[in-house]
Amino acid sequence: MRAIYFDGDTSLREVDDPRPAHGEALIAVDLAGVCRTDIEITQGYMDFRGVLGHEFVGTVLECESHSELKGKRVVGEINIAPGCVDDLERRHAPGRAVLGIAGKDGCFAEKITLPAENLHIVANEVDNVSAVFVEPLAAALEILEQVHIRPGDSAAVVGDGKLGLLVARVLVLTGCGVTLIGKHERKLAIARAYGAETLAIEQAAGRKFDIAVDCAGSPSGLQTALSLLQPMGTLILKTTTAVAPDFHTAQLVVDEITVVGSRCGPFPPALRLLAEGLVDVKPLIEKTFPLDKGVEALEHAARPGALKVLIEIA
Amino acid sequence: MRAIYFDGDTSLREVDDPRPAHGEALIAVDLAGVCRTDIEITQGYMDFRGVLGHEFVGTVLECESHSELKGKRVVGEINIAPGCVDDLERRHAPGRAVLGIAGKDGCFAEKITLPAENLHIVANEVDNVSAVFVEPLAAALEILEQVHIRPGDSAAVVGDGKLGLLVARVLVLTGCGVTLIGKHERKLAIARAYGAETLAIEQAAGRKFDIAVDCAGSPSGLQTALSLLQPMGTLILKTTTAVAPDFHTAQLVVDEITVVGSRCGPFPPALRLLAEGLVDVKPLIEKTFPLDKGVEALEHAARPGALKVLIEIA
Repeated sequence: MRAIYFDGDTSLREVDDPRPAHGEALIAVDLAGVCRTDIEITQGYMDFRGVLGHEFVGTVLECESHSELKGKRVVGEINIAPGCVDDLERRHAPGRAVLGIAGKDGCFAEKITLPAENLHIVANEVDNVSAVFVEPLAAALEILEQVHIRPGDSAAVVGDGKLGLLVARVLVLTGCGVTLIGKHERKLAIARAYGAETLAIEQAAGRKFDIAVDCAGSPSGLQTALSLLQPMGTLILKTTTAVAPDFHTAQLVVDEITVVGSRCGPFPPALRLLAEGLVDVKPLIEKTFPLDKGVEALEHAARPGALKVLIEIA
Repeated sequence: MRAIYFDGDTSLREVDDPRPAHGEALIAVDLAGVCRTDIEITQGYMDFRGVLGHEFVGTVLECESHSELKGKRVVGEINIAPGCVDDLERRHAPGRAVLGIAGKDGCFAEKITLPAENLHIVANEVDNVSAVFVEPLAAALEILEQVHIRPGDSAAVVGDGKLGLLVARVLVLTGCGVTLIGKHERKLAIARAYGAETLAIEQAAGRKFDIAVDCAGSPSGLQTALSLLQPMGTLILKTTTAVAPDFHTAQLVVDEITVVGSRCGPFPPALRLLAEGLVDVKPLIEKTFPLDKGVEALEHAARPGALKVLIEIA
């Protein structure tokens, strides 16, 4: 089968079809999404070698242990740790594999395998283009799993990338006042259509919020988000970069700030919100490439300011 | 009156008696405690000029607005912001004064003034030597105000200084398993008598806890505390130093760590625990100096490994 493979270089290759292990399903990938993490992997993050990609929607070709899945359209949780009792345990299992990120070939390929317990059936109301956003939308929802955000709160989202825009939309649904802070007018306009206020970074100085979410993907994002917090506020980190070398924890202590690191989230509520039409992901799509142009798709996704790039496989 | 004054140098001086403003009490200081923050102020922290000191027990000489306080033995909350409705608001009021730390002369003096609303009457069961620990004990209790620590949790306290020992004792009272990690055998023995397990820092590698409290007072403490946390664990920061220049937030995000900055706490539960004899502060006392030797007291308190130094005033 064809796949986008990374071994130091990224290339389209012919590789062997994956073979499902016990308890795994074999899935034909229909559509995949390119995430910032895929780009970072091609720059050395996680030291991964193999087929890239972890956002997908596909169709189950076979599954011995759960034959009722055959023919179903599915999305899949990316953390693989057989024997874990729930997705939370799986997400934090030591030595876990992660689809297209650590120890498991990813979804920029015609076929993948995943444990049946990782799969969620996609309702008819959710088309493929929406379903491919389930993984990042779940990551946005993880904030609400971790932090009690009240309808009366004010929240700032720093960073107008794909994740920042999804986070802004999810926060708007709680009833709280949401302000997205970014630098691309095209994306700020999407956030306004999502029901958020928007500010350019230079307009945000002096504004104070109960909650600030760092989705900037750059070291300065944390400092910006922190500067926007009221005393006793909560800073949510979605960015994995290093902090600036002069970062002091004194402000965290004096102002009694809570910092919450936040990563993958729950798929079922993401599927529900998409089925209800409460999150419209269409404005987030930049361009769709066929699998044969997968390398180009990754290059396009790496452009500053690019929104979601999709790879059509089936 | 006599006072220990800092104006770039620390000296014993004759200064004017303070005059209570409207709503303030005039208090004769009986006994004061030296805190790490006092030492840091003499090294330039907070840019403070004036009478040092913020831990005290004293006797109200006069209070026009609350005459029932006259003659009572009191301790006092250190954040001063008239018009705030409660102590939490006061602790975070912008532009607040802080006793002996910012904009308000402190308690290494024969007399101080404080708003009546800052004062708490000390029960007869609590002697002066215990009462002077109310402020740091409240700071230790603030952890339990902010974080739900369960009886089944495991908690590591990094740093065997005065605050680390008080934090360890307060955590032991919750029923959770407490391990104090430090380097002075004399202090580790106090923690064991408090009901905590103890480990030297080099023995702690590889151990994992649900909760880690950084009381180390040094930049490496945060990294040590973080290395002791399980995924989804909570790191509580009591130390205000800068982080190491290579500190990455990636671990916070990948392991979904919560970081909670924690500072001043509630006085009433601290007074209750002392009255019940549930916290015995006597083992924490290093030496008591008279006010005339206050400069020496500060020098002694600055020695590496020193425990609590007291200044007897009345």
